[in-house]
Amino acid sequence: MLKVGLLGAGRIGAVHAKAISSHPGSRLVAVSDVNADAASMLAAKYGARASSNHEILDDVSIDAVLVATSTNTHSDLIEAATRAGKAVLCEKPVDLSLARARACLKAVGATGRPVMIGFNRRFDPNFAALKAAADRGEIGKTELLSITSFDPAPPPIPYVKVSGGLFRDMMIHDFDMANFIMGELPKTVYASGSSIVDPDIGAAGDVDTAVVTLTYGNGRIAVIKNSRRAVYGYDQRVELLGSDGLLSAANVLENTVSKSTRGGVTSAKPELFFLERYMRAYVAEWDAFVSAVIDNKAVPITLQDGVDALAVAEAATASLKAGTPVPI
Amino acid sequence: MLKVGLLGAGRIGAVHAKAISSHPGSRLVAVSDVNADAASMLAAKYGARASSNHEILDDVSIDAVLVATSTNTHSDLIEAATRAGKAVLCEKPVDLSLARARACLKAVGATGRPVMIGFNRRFDPNFAALKAAADRGEIGKTELLSITSFDPAPPPIPYVKVSGGLFRDMMIHDFDMANFIMGELPKTVYASGSSIVDPDIGAAGDVDTAVVTLTYGNGRIAVIKNSRRAVYGYDQRVELLGSDGLLSAANVLENTVSKSTRGGVTSAKPELFFLERYMRAYVAEWDAFVSAVIDNKAVPITLQDGVDALAVAEAATASLKAGTPVPI
Amino acid sequence: MLKVGLLGAGRIGAVHAKAISSHPGSRLVAVSDVNADAASMLAAKYGARASSNHEILDDVSIDAVLVATSTNTHSDLIEAATRAGKAVLCEKPVDLSLARARACLKAVGATGRPVMIGFNRRFDPNFAALKAAADRGEIGKTELLSITSFDPAPPPIPYVKVSGGLFRDMMIHDFDMANFIMGELPKTVYASGSSIVDPDIGAAGDVDTAVVTLTYGNGRIAVIKNSRRAVYGYDQRVELLGSDGLLSAANVLENTVSKSTRGGVTSAKPELFFLERYMRAYVAEWDAFVSAVIDNKAVPITLQDGVDALAVAEAATASLKAGTPVPI
Amino acid sequence: MLKVGLLGAGRIGAVHAKAISSHPGSRLVAVSDVNADAASMLAAKYGARASSNHEILDDVSIDAVLVATSTNTHSDLIEAATRAGKAVLCEKPVDLSLARARACLKAVGATGRPVMIGFNRRFDPNFAALKAAADRGEIGKTELLSITSFDPAPPPIPYVKVSGGLFRDMMIHDFDMANFIMGELPKTVYASGSSIVDPDIGAAGDVDTAVVTLTYGNGRIAVIKNSRRAVYGYDQRVELLGSDGLLSAANVLENTVSKSTRGGVTSAKPELFFLERYMRAYVAEWDAFVSAVIDNKAVPITLQDGVDALAVAEAATASLKAGTPVPI
Repeated sequence: MLKVGLLGAGRIGAVHAKAISSHPGSRLVAVSDVNADAASMLAAKYGARASSNHEILDDVSIDAVLVATSTNTHSDLIEAATRAGKAVLCEKPVDLSLARARACLKAVGATGRPVMIGFNRRFDPNFAALKAAADRGEIGKTELLSITSFDPAPPPIPYVKVSGGLFRDMMIHDFDMANFIMGELPKTVYASGSSIVDPDIGAAGDVDTAVVTLTYGNGRIAVIKNSRRAVYGYDQRVELLGSDGLLSAANVLENTVSKSTRGGVTSAKPELFFLERYMRAYVAEWDAFVSAVIDNKAVPITLQDGVDALAVAEAATASLKAGTPVPI
Repeated sequence: MLKVGLLGAGRIGAVHAKAISSHPGSRLVAVSDVNADAASMLAAKYGARASSNHEILDDVSIDAVLVATSTNTHSDLIEAATRAGKAVLCEKPVDLSLARARACLKAVGATGRPVMIGFNRRFDPNFAALKAAADRGEIGKTELLSITSFDPAPPPIPYVKVSGGLFRDMMIHDFDMANFIMGELPKTVYASGSSIVDPDIGAAGDVDTAVVTLTYGNGRIAVIKNSRRAVYGYDQRVELLGSDGLLSAANVLENTVSKSTRGGVTSAKPELFFLERYMRAYVAEWDAFVSAVIDNKAVPITLQDGVDALAVAEAATASLKAGTPVPI
Repeated sequence: MLKVGLLGAGRIGAVHAKAISSHPGSRLVAVSDVNADAASMLAAKYGARASSNHEILDDVSIDAVLVATSTNTHSDLIEAATRAGKAVLCEKPVDLSLARARACLKAVGATGRPVMIGFNRRFDPNFAALKAAADRGEIGKTELLSITSFDPAPPPIPYVKVSGGLFRDMMIHDFDMANFIMGELPKTVYASGSSIVDPDIGAAGDVDTAVVTLTYGNGRIAVIKNSRRAVYGYDQRVELLGSDGLLSAANVLENTVSKSTRGGVTSAKPELFFLERYMRAYVAEWDAFVSAVIDNKAVPITLQDGVDALAVAEAATASLKAGTPVPI
Repeated sequence: MLKVGLLGAGRIGAVHAKAISSHPGSRLVAVSDVNADAASMLAAKYGARASSNHEILDDVSIDAVLVATSTNTHSDLIEAATRAGKAVLCEKPVDLSLARARACLKAVGATGRPVMIGFNRRFDPNFAALKAAADRGEIGKTELLSITSFDPAPPPIPYVKVSGGLFRDMMIHDFDMANFIMGELPKTVYASGSSIVDPDIGAAGDVDTAVVTLTYGNGRIAVIKNSRRAVYGYDQRVELLGSDGLLSAANVLENTVSKSTRGGVTSAKPELFFLERYMRAYVAEWDAFVSAVIDNKAVPITLQDGVDALAVAEAATASLKAGTPVPI
C-alpha cells in the first residue's frame, strides 16, 4: 500500500486525490496547499490529514508525492521530494524554463528516485490504442502525424500571462504526444500563430491559434493544430498515416444518441473538457505510477520525457518569434 | 443495340427513359402513355417517337419493352408483350391480385420470353454489397434479418385507395428484399399495423405504420418496419445477424459535411426519396436487364420473384385483418 | 450516510458493492451469500462484515438492503426486508412467477417501504438521453419503437434451464425499456422465436433468438429483437420514430480508433458485455436509489414497474407457445 | 446548344467528353489529340468528329473548347482559343510557369472571352456544402482551415519528372481550395516535405509527402497535408474552424455497409481516386461553365483563380527549397 502525499489541492489536485483514494494499492495520507482551507477540505473528503509541503516531504512514512502545485514550484518540489526519497508524479510541465528543467533532471538523476511526468493523454484509451496499433506495425512504416487539439474556451488573461505561453502551457501535451507516437524528437520546429480568438491574448504576448510543423530525420513530418476555442467542446484527435494505412483516434462524444429531423442528423458533442474526456486517463496514469513504484520498474513517462516536450515547446516559441523554422 | 419501347411516361417512366438512353447497349425508340402529351414530351427529350401500347407491341423492330404504367395494367401488358416476342422489364408489383399474377406467370411461361420485375433495390450498391458479403459467408450462417423502410411522407389519399394497401404497394419492396437476402420464402407472416401517421389513411382502409415478422423453416426470422412518414428523409436500412457477425447497410446521406456547434454535431439527412437514393440502382437494374437479354441469360429478378413478393404481401394483408400469423 | 447490507456476493453483487462503497452517501456494512467465502472476501474488500440474510435484516442500524441473490429468492427477501423496515433495491426480475410478484407487490404495499427494481439500463446515459429528448417532445408524437438487444454469447445450458426462459431472463430488460419509453403497458404481445444459435437451448425448452411485437392502444407499435449471440460484442441499441423525427441510441464502442487499410476502415467493437457497457448505469442507479431514500422521495423504478415488465414477459412466453398474439 | 470542341482525348478528356455529351445544353462536335487514334475513338463514342487543334479553333461554328491536353500546352491553347473567340474551360494548372500564366491572363483579358479553370473540387457537393455553410456564417468568423489530400498511389517517375512538382501538380488543387474557402490569397507560405513514400521521387527532385502552412493578414491560418500514398483510397477532407463551430467534410465511402465481427466493425473504404470521387463534380463543373457561357455571366472559377493557385504553388516550391517561409 503506497502512502501518498498530495501537494496542491486545486482542480487537478482534486482529480488526483480521487484517483489515489480509489486505487487499491495507494492511500492518500496528507494534502498540502498554499490555500490551507482547500487542503483541509480535500483531505477531509478522503480521510487524509491537511499538512504542509515540508511536513509531507519530512514524513518518512510517506512513499510518494503527487505534485499538483503551480508550475513555477515543480522543479523545486521534484528535487526536494526525490532528495527526501519519495517517488514523484508531477503534473506537466516540468518547468517554464528548459534550463531549469534540465538542472532538475540532473539533480534527480543523482537521487535515483523515480519521477514520472503527468502527460495524462498517453493513458487515454483511444490514443493508447492508436499507439499500440502503430507499434504492432498495423499501418506499416509511419510517415505523417496530425494532432488536433482545441480547448473549449480560452483561459482568463491573468492565467495566460503566467502560463509560459500556448506552446509551454497547452501544446506541450501535443508535443509529448508527438514524441510518444513518433518515438523520437523532431529535428526542426516551425510555428505559426495568431491571437484571432481574443486580441487580449495577443496583447498579453501570447497566441490562441497555432499550427506547428515538426520534421524528423528520416523524412517523417508531424503537424499540430491548437486553438483555445472550439465552442462545441474539447476537440482531441490524432491521425497517423503510414505506408500501409491510417490510424485515427476520434473524439469521445457525450453520448451515442442521434436525432434525425427535418434539419439534419444531430449527435452529441465531444466531452466538454479535460476532466470529462481524460478522467479514465488520470486513473490509468495513477495506476501505471503505482505499479511502477511498487514493482520497482521504470515509470512509463520519465522526467526526460518532460524535458523533451519542453525542449520542443521552447523551440516552437522561438520559431514563432523568429518567423522561421528552428532546430531542436 | 436493344431497341426499347417504354410504356408509361410518368415519374418512374422518365427515370427509365434516361437509363435506357444513357446505356450504350440500348436505345429508346418509342414512348406511350394514357396522357399523350406526357408521351410526346418524354419521347422528344430522348429522340424517340410518341406512340401507343399497341403500336409498340406490334412493332417487330422493337426488342424489349419497359412497363411503367399503372399497376392494374401490368399483367395484361406483360402477357401481351411476351406474346409479341418482346423481352420485358416491368415495374413492381406484378399485380394487386396474387391469382392474376400467377395466371400471368403461367401465360408468360408458355412464351419463353424473359420477364424481369423492377425490384430496383436489389441493385442498390449498398444492399447488393450486403447480400454479396452474406453469400460469401462473411457472417457465417444467417439468422435474423431486419429491414427498416420509411418513406419521407405519406402519399395522397386517392393514391392510397387504389394502391392495394401498404403491404402490396410499399412493403412489397421489403418482402422482395427479404426473399432476396434469405434466399427462400418465409413459412409464416405476422403483421401489425396502424394508421397513427394519418387517420385518413385508416379511413381509407389502409395502415401507415407496420411491423411484419417473417419466420422461416430453419428457425431464421426476419422483421420489417414500415412507416409512411420519416420527416428526415427516406430511411432505407438493412441489418443481417449471423453466427459470425452482423452486416449493416446504413442510409446514404446527402453529403458528408458535419457541423459542430454549441448545439451538437449535425450531419446531412438521408437522401430525400427513391429518385435520389436509388438512381444508381435504376441504372444498374437496366444494365442487368440489357446484359441478360443480349447475352440470352436468365434475368436476375424473375416474374416468379414478383409473384413471390406478392404472395408475402397478400399473407401480410390477411394477417393484419385476422390478427394472427398466416402461413404462406 | 445510508448503511447498506448486500444480499448476494456474486458477479453482480460485486458490481453493487463497489457502487455502494464509492458513493459518498452510502456505506457497505454487511455482506451475505450462500457461499460464505464469497461473502467474506467481498466484505473484506470494502471494510464490511460478512453476515447472513437474517442478521442483516435484523440489524436495525442497517437502512437499506441490496438484493442480488438468485431470482427465486427475490420476492421473499423483498417482503422480509420491507417488513424489517429496510429500503430495498432488488435486481431484476422480481420473480419468475407473475402471481408471486403480484403478491409481493401487495405485501410490500402494506409496509410502506420503498422498493426499487434494478432495471439498470434506464440509467444508461444514452438511453436516458433518448428518453429525455422524447419527453421534451423533440421528435413530436412517438409512433414506433425498436429495441435491438443481443448478448455476446449464450449462457450455459444449466443456467438456461433455471432462467425462466429468454423472455423473463433477458428480454425483460427490453420490456422494461419499452414500458419506460412508451410510458404505458402494451395491449398485445406477439412473440416469434427459435433456437437457431444453439439447438441445446431448444432442447432445454428455451429460444435464443426472438422477435416480439408490442401494440399499444393508440396505434403505437414496438418491436424487440433478441439474440443470445452477437460475436462482435454486446449490441444494445434503441430507436424511436416520431412525427417529427427519429431518436437513435447507438452502441458504445471500446474506443474511438479506426484503422483504414487496403481491407477497409475498421473501428472498435461495442463494449463486450453488461459489466463494461453498463458500469456507469449501475453507479447512476445506485445514486438514484440513495437520493430517493435519503430525500424520502419516490424511487424512480418501482416494484410495480418490475411486475409490469414481468407481465409482458409472461405474455410473450404464452404467445410463443400459442403461436398467436396474446393480450396483456 | 453550345457546340464544343475537346482538345485532348486522354483519361480526363474522356471524363469531360461524357459530361459534355450528357449535358442537355451542350454537344460535343470535335475531338483532337496528339494521338489521332485516341481522338477518333473518343469522338466516335459520342458521335463527334476527330479533328485537330487548329481545325477546331478555326471552326467558327464551335462555341467553346475544353482544354484537356498536357499542361505545357495550356497557356498557348487558352490564348489561341480566346483569340478565336471561343469560351474556354481549361484543366488545371494554367501553366507550370507563373510568369507564363500571368502573360496568358493578360492576353486573354484583351480578348474579353470567358476562361474557366477546371478546379473541379469546388463543385464536389461536400466541399461546396461546406463553403456555402461557411458563407452563410454558420460557424461565425472563420479562423483555421485544414485540408487533407492524399492520393491512393504515387504516379510513375516519368510523370513526376515533368509534373512541375507536387505543389504545382497535386497540391495546387488544395491551394485553390484554400483560396476558395478563405476568399483571399495567403500572405506567407511555409512548406515542409520529404520523399518518404518513394526515394525515387526524391531522386527525381520532388517530394511525395508535404505539409504547407498558409498565413493570412487577419491572423487566419490554413494547413494542407499531402501524401502521394494512402493505400486505403483517395483521402479528401476539409475542416474549417470558426468562432461558432467547426465544419467538416468527410470522405465519400464506396458504400454504406459495415460488418461487425470478432475483429471489429469494418466499413467500406473511401472512393478509390478522382474519377470515382469527383465524377459528380466534373458534371457540375461543366454545367456551371455551360450556364455561365449561355447566360453570358462570369464563370465561377476564373483564369485569375488559376494564376492565384499557381502563385501559391510557386511560393511553396520556393519555401521548400529555402527552408523558410516565403511571402506571396
